[in-house]
This record gives sequence, structure tokens and C-alpha cells, in this order.
Amino acid sequence: MASPSVSDAFEQPFFPDEPAGPIMRTEIPGPQSKKAIAHLDKVFETRSLNMMANYQNSFGNYIADLDGNVLLDVYAQIASIPVGYSNPSLLLAATSPDMASAIINRPALGNFPQHDWAEILETGILRVAPKGLDQVFTAQAGSDANELAYKAAFMWKRRQQRGGPDVDFTQEEITSAMNNQAPGAPDMSILSFKTGFHGRLFGSLSTTRSKPIHKLDIPAFDWPQASFPALKYPLEEHAEENAREEQRCLEETEKILTTFHSPPAAIIVEPIQSEGGDNHATPAFFKGLRALTRKHDVLMIVDEVQTGVGATGKFWAHEHWNMEDPPDMVTFSKKAQTAGYYFGNPDLRPNKPYRQFNTWMGDPARALLFRAIINEIERLNLVQNTAETGDYLYNRLQELGEKYPGEIQNLRGKGQGTFIAWDSPRRDEVLKKAKGVGINVGGSGERAVRLRPMLIFQKKHADIFVDGMEKVFQS
Amino acid sequence: MASPSVSDAFEQPFFPDEPAGPIMRTEIPGPQSKKAIAHLDKVFETRSLNMMANYQNSFGNYIADLDGNVLLDVYAQIASIPVGYSNPSLLLAATSPDMASAIINRPALGNFPQHDWAEILETGILRVAPKGLDQVFTAQAGSDANELAYKAAFMWKRRQQRGGPDVDFTQEEITSAMNNQAPGAPDMSILSFKTGFHGRLFGSLSTTRSKPIHKLDIPAFDWPQASFPALKYPLEEHAEENAREEQRCLEETEKILTTFHSPPAAIIVEPIQSEGGDNHATPAFFKGLRALTRKHDVLMIVDEVQTGVGATGKFWAHEHWNMEDPPDMVTFSKKAQTAGYYFGNPDLRPNKPYRQFNTWMGDPARALLFRAIINEIERLNLVQNTAETGDYLYNRLQELGEKYPGEIQNLRGKGQGTFIAWDSPRRDEVLKKAKGVGINVGGSGERAVRLRPMLIFQKKHADIFVDGMEKVFQS
Repeated sequence: MASPSVSDAFEQPFFPDEPAGPIMRTEIPGPQSKKAIAHLDKVFETRSLNMMANYQNSFGNYIADLDGNVLLDVYAQIASIPVGYSNPSLLLAATSPDMASAIINRPALGNFPQHDWAEILETGILRVAPKGLDQVFTAQAGSDANELAYKAAFMWKRRQQRGGPDVDFTQEEITSAMNNQAPGAPDMSILSFKTGFHGRLFGSLSTTRSKPIHKLDIPAFDWPQASFPALKYPLEEHAEENAREEQRCLEETEKILTTFHSPPAAIIVEPIQSEGGDNHATPAFFKGLRALTRKHDVLMIVDEVQTGVGATGKFWAHEHWNMEDPPDMVTFSKKAQTAGYYFGNPDLRPNKPYRQFNTWMGDPARALLFRAIINEIERLNLVQNTAETGDYLYNRLQELGEKYPGEIQNLRGKGQGTFIAWDSPRRDEVLKKAKGVGINVGGSGERAVRLRPMLIFQKKHADIFVDGMEKVFQS
Repeated sequence: MASPSVSDAFEQPFFPDEPAGPIMRTEIPGPQSKKAIAHLDKVFETRSLNMMANYQNSFGNYIADLDGNVLLDVYAQIASIPVGYSNPSLLLAATSPDMASAIINRPALGNFPQHDWAEILETGILRVAPKGLDQVFTAQAGSDANELAYKAAFMWKRRQQRGGPDVDFTQEEITSAMNNQAPGAPDMSILSFKTGFHGRLFGSLSTTRSKPIHKLDIPAFDWPQASFPALKYPLEEHAEENAREEQRCLEETEKILTTFHSPPAAIIVEPIQSEGGDNHATPAFFKGLRALTRKHDVLMIVDEVQTGVGATGKFWAHEHWNMEDPPDMVTFSKKAQTAGYYFGNPDLRPNKPYRQFNTWMGDPARALLFRAIINEIERLNLVQNTAETGDYLYNRLQELGEKYPGEIQNLRGKGQGTFIAWDSPRRDEVLKKAKGVGINVGGSGERAVRLRPMLIFQKKHADIFVDGMEKVFQS
């Protein structure tokens, strides 16, 4: 089904064994998949099921199902597969003696860290730490990474209010904390942005504002939200209007920071709002946030759970901002295949042990895997590949959008690697029909088609994707 | 250092290669460990560090450090190692092709489950599902397992209040939920017990009541707590008084269920309060809770994160209660090396997809490992071993307590496998000195010594432990 293109000839394939293009044998789900889904439904949630996969048969950018269908995957397990299915370098790491020991001898890292934990961090997670941040607290998923960062922020702020690390808790604080009441359990907040997404546990969900279905019926903290800029596209034609919009959002943020009844200890923001509809803002907006957080002495947490690890053509999306003053904490997960938050300021370590603690505190097995991912990204120069492929893909989509202006609206993500999206008036139909032409693609927000290919996505894959989309639009 | 005992002769060793006893070469931490700890401290939290370990050198019940010391481990990574360090059966599972694929091709299980996920669940996690519970929602750690159970409880209760699964959300609910306000984000609660522990994320921490250090400076939901029975020991001598105490706690629970300003959707309780000091209650108390939750139509969540998977001499600790009406949800993690909650009632599946959802929704690699753990437990009959070793260990400790009544107070856990604890007037000193005689043991609550050996703990290990304790008491 792939349409050979001029771009193919110049590329060295990263995955020589990968299929030349999608292979479609049945409708999706086909008969084998239907049977397996009915079976799974008896014991596990399947109503959100998109496609049942056979990962042993999936290679590189291609995901296989149970009926012999093989699809080009530009969704990649909700943006969480970094370097291809069945990647041989990761397979080596996954079958190493170190990995085996990490799997079967999982330590409680806060109490009994393994002898090489510092080295695993330094040669892996910390080697790619954002500029200015040289420490890490490891976690298991984006949600708990964000919540741990929130906890660090609250402890930092209360310590500051208390007068430093050596001022001890009062008896009133101790008693009230055990009773879930202020001052021990303080009436403080995390400021997040409208249409932002930061997870689904109780604290993180209180900062998530993307869709009601995530939040309905779940008790939430009375925490504040500021407007996130609603930029108009094409950006070149709306520069002044967009700058005013960003200014408006900054002013709203400052107002909340100074007047909200439950004072924020930190703001959290995504470089690109990734579940809420692929909403972008300019570096000026984020620099403005950094200035506001400095001015009002609250922390700035950048949530790179979906944007991090190369997808925007930089290792971390916030590098696009060229900020001299780094964020206080940066959270990560998904493509890292592990999770946690980076920080630099030693004051963000709590003043006593066991305040930021849990049994496992991350997972050395997953830290070893992230190290292998980092090595593979460097070996194949995949961040640069993603920047270049992204430019190529964006241009081809722009051309396609000129041909089908009713189908591709507000194309966005220029210069942001393959982190590209557009609005579609018939989004869910487009996503569904894409499967029919051998493409697995997802949505975000109410009407965006979001592209989240892996870092091994090349121009030939971009061609297959764009040609497939054209077939969908023609149908 | 092991003192050979008569009990050895009758036992088939589960781990033929494990050391005959502890090997102590240096103080702990020794010189190599000190260097490594100083190194780690630059990049990772070490103030809660108990001992740095080399897991490749650790076998069976014995944990090795970096200085040639090898300790009998009755703490087992905070009760989370089930069948011994470097267990060969787990090693086989960890190096299988299925495991390698699970590690490198991690799926978003809610959208793109793997073809054999139902089978992995049925032959593993669900094969040991508590009686009456035939479904599971998988998670990553105890904290998020509990929070997912809370979310299920809130959705269930609101659906009931709303009038069934087909009654849709009102516009007011949708709007208010996005604003973190009732009725969309309802003013409802989870009832937990004083000195209970259920995790450290924002929702779970709001139900945790064990120690102020866990809770200070962290905002919490205004949720209620009931007293947990404070039983007097020996139980035989205080039966009537203890029954009154349990009745008092049940009455307090009922009062909260009927009058608390933020109505509970569920109660959560540990079969043995495991972080809060190894506090036990009788089956009558738990049956009373089940009756109360039925009477007032709230759910009963049993937190088996620490008690589950064999340690009490039953696979699940709540089996000791012989309840005909099972709990609504049972959460698990730690020795399962994965996490989640079991449930039976199909009404606990939310009425729409994406309400209970996250990117990974568990981890097939860890589910495969739990399956191997279950197989190993069955192959070696380890639940029965733990019941028998526990009885032997309890009796030996009782004798030791008669000899050193000032050292062993309120010995508890009789008939509860190796889930044994006692109060110690100089607990922290005892834990520290135990290292000197080659024993790694932990505490719980303010003054309990808690035993959390693995399921492969045998009588010969019990002898080494008891003899070691006697040396500590003599010192």
C-alpha cells in the first residue's frame, strides 16, 4: 500500500526488517481479534479498546494485529514507544543479566538501593537531565511523577513560610495534619491551565482540565486554573493578536497567584497541551510564566510527560524556549518508559527523611531500559531525525491542507519535530477510516488529529502517512 | 553464625545454594558501602537509606552488601520480595521471550491490549483472585491501586444516587466538575481507620493515618477516620475487653457513616495495620464492618497491599475471616510485584469508557512475573510453609519473650503465618544491633519490631533469627 516516493532514496533505514508499508487483510477488528476481544472483556475493561495487537509480530513503526493486518503506527501507545517495536538494541538490554536481576530482585530504593543505582542514574536518566537540573526523584508513571513534584513544592513552600529547614513542626501542625486539617495539611494549591492534562490520580486530576469524562464523580481539591493561550493559525498572520492573547493569560495567571484563596505553591504547565487538543504557546509565554513565578516566589513545574524524550525535535520540548533560568522541576514518563521529576535546587529535598518516600521509589528495570533508549537515540541521532522528518511531514501536510482545506484546519507544530496536529471537522470518522488504509492514528481534545510517531519515523513513513490521509479525505 | 537446630533435619531446603547463615565481615555500612552511599547522595535521596545492597550476590533469604556481609533478611524490601532473591524460577520467567517483548513493547492496555492479556490475567493475577471477585483493574503500586479503587467507589455511588447507569450527567455536573466543584466533583469521602496506611499520593494519603511525617505540609481531603481496635495481649486473657473495644470501634464507624458531613462512598481497611504498628483485629470486627457497609450501602475495600500473597499463612489475609459475603474490592501490590484491585460486582465497571483509564493501566511484564511467583508458591507449597514456619517462629518468640519480658511485649500474629510483631521499648536500637548479628529486620509504628520474611522462610531461618535476637537482647 505504500506509495514509493522520492524521499525514500536518500534515507538510511533505521529498521531494515520493517515492512515496506501497511498490510491490510481484513476489516479491523477482524475475526480473530473479535474473538479475543470478547474473551478479554470478561475479565478486563475493553470499552476503550482501539485495536488488539500482537507485539511479537510488530516491528519498528508497524503494529500488527491478530488477523494479519500490519499498520503504520503514528500513535505509538499514546506517545510512549520511543524507538520502535521489537527494537534490537532494547532487546539486548532487556535480556541482559542486569535486567534479569532488576526484574526479580526489585529493591525498595529509598531503604536498600542497589550498589550501582548511582551509576545507572548517571549514565541514563541524569545524562539527559534538562539543563540546570542535576537531581532526580524516580517514579512509575506520569501521574505519580507530577504528584511527587507537587508534594516537593508544598514542602518547599511551607518550609519557606516556617522560616527555613531547621524550624521544626509545631504540635498544632502535627495534630492537625493527622486530622487532614490546616495548618498541618495546609490550604494551598497548585495552579494549572485550562485544557491541561497532568494525570488522573486525586492530586494530579485536580490539576487536569482537559475533559469532563476524566473528572466527573471524583472529588477534587479546590485549586485554581488560568486560561491557556488560544492561538490563531497560521501564526504568521495573527502574530499581534496572539501576543495579546498570551499577555491576557499571563495577567490572569498573576491575578490568581496573588489573590486566589488557596495560595499556589507552584504552577504546572505542559510545553504543548497534549491531551487537551495540542495547544501551543510561544516561548514568550513560557518566559513570562517563569518571570511571574520568580516574582511571586512560587515554583514552575514543566510537565514533559508527553512532550519529552525527543518528539518535538529537541530532547526536552522546553529547550525550544531558550530560557536562561530553568524550570524548578521537570516531570517525565511515557517515552522514557519510566518516570520521575528532575530538579536542581537542593532546597527541594525535604528537610527530613521519609517525607518524600514510598516502597519502590521507581524501578531499576525501567531505568535500565531508559538508558538503552537514550543510547539508541544517540547512536541513531534520532532527535535530529525527528526534527528533520517533522519539517518534511509538516510541509507535506501543509500542501495537503491546501488541497483539502475542509479536512485540515489549524495545522500546528511547525518546527516542533513530529509533534504535529490539526483540527478535523469529522475527526472520529477520520481516525476510524485511517485504519482502513493501514494507519493507526489518534486524537486529542475535541477535534484534533494528533501525530505521535516514534523517533524512528522517517520521510518514507511520512509519505505513506500523508498519502493514506489523502485516501481518507477522498473517501 | 547460624546455630544448628533440631528443626533443620526435617526440612527440605527451598534454596539449596543459599548461605548456611549470616556472614559478617565489617560494621554496616562498611568502607565500600560508605563510599557508594556518598556517591549516591549527590544525585538521589539517601537519608532514608538503611543498607546498600548487591542483589546479584543476594540469594534466597539472604541479602548481600558491598563489603562481603550477608544478612538474613526478614524485612524483604518492605515486605515485597515473595520467593527469595535471585530465585531461579523467576529468573527463567524474567529471561523468557514473552518477558523481553513485554519489557520493550509496553502497551497502553486500555487502548491496545496485547493478544494474550486475557490469558496472562487468567493464568496469573485472576487465578489467585479472592473468592467472589473475578475481575481486575491493574495498576503499578499500592498507592495508585487504592486510588483507582476509590475512584471506582465514587463513580459507583454517584451512579446509584443518579438513578442508574443510563442516567446521564447533567450540564451542571459537567461544568462544575471542570471547575473542581460539587456536584460534578462531589463532596464525598472514603472512611479509613486511625493508624492505617494506604499510600502517599494525594487521595491515598488522605486516608493514611499512621505517622505525621507522611502527611505534614501536604494538602488533604477532609475525609473521616474511625478508631481501629487497640487489642490487649495476650488475647486469651483479654477476650471480653477486646470484644468491647471492637464494638466501640464499630459504633464509631457507624456514626461516621451516618453523620459525617462528606458522606463516605466506601471504607478501606487493612486486615492487619502494617505500617501503623502491626495492629490486629478479630474476624468479628471485620464481619461487623461488612455488615455495616451493607446496611448503609457503602463499599468495603480491603487493602491487602502488605498482607496479601501468602505472608499470613493464607494467600489473602482476609480469608482468615471466613466471611460469606466477600469485600467489594481487594487491592494488592508488594509481593505481587505488580498492583491493582480485584472486584466482582459488574456495577463497579464505570458506565462509560475512559472514566477509569490511564496510559499504561498496569504492566504486562510485572503481570508475567506475578504469574511466575504464583507458580513458584504453588510448586513449593509456600503458603502452607509460611503457616507452619509462622507457628514455629511464634512459639520460639513466645519462649524468648518469657525469658526477656522487657524486650518482647505484646507479641502478636499468632496463627497469622510469619506476619508477627512485638513491641520493643528500645526498638530502633534493637533494629540497629540486629545488623551486627547478621539480621536485617524492620519496624512499624512507633515501637513495633515487624517480621516480614519471604515465603521461603523456613524453621532453620527462624532459629537463626531467634538466636540472633537473643544475642541482641543480651548485649
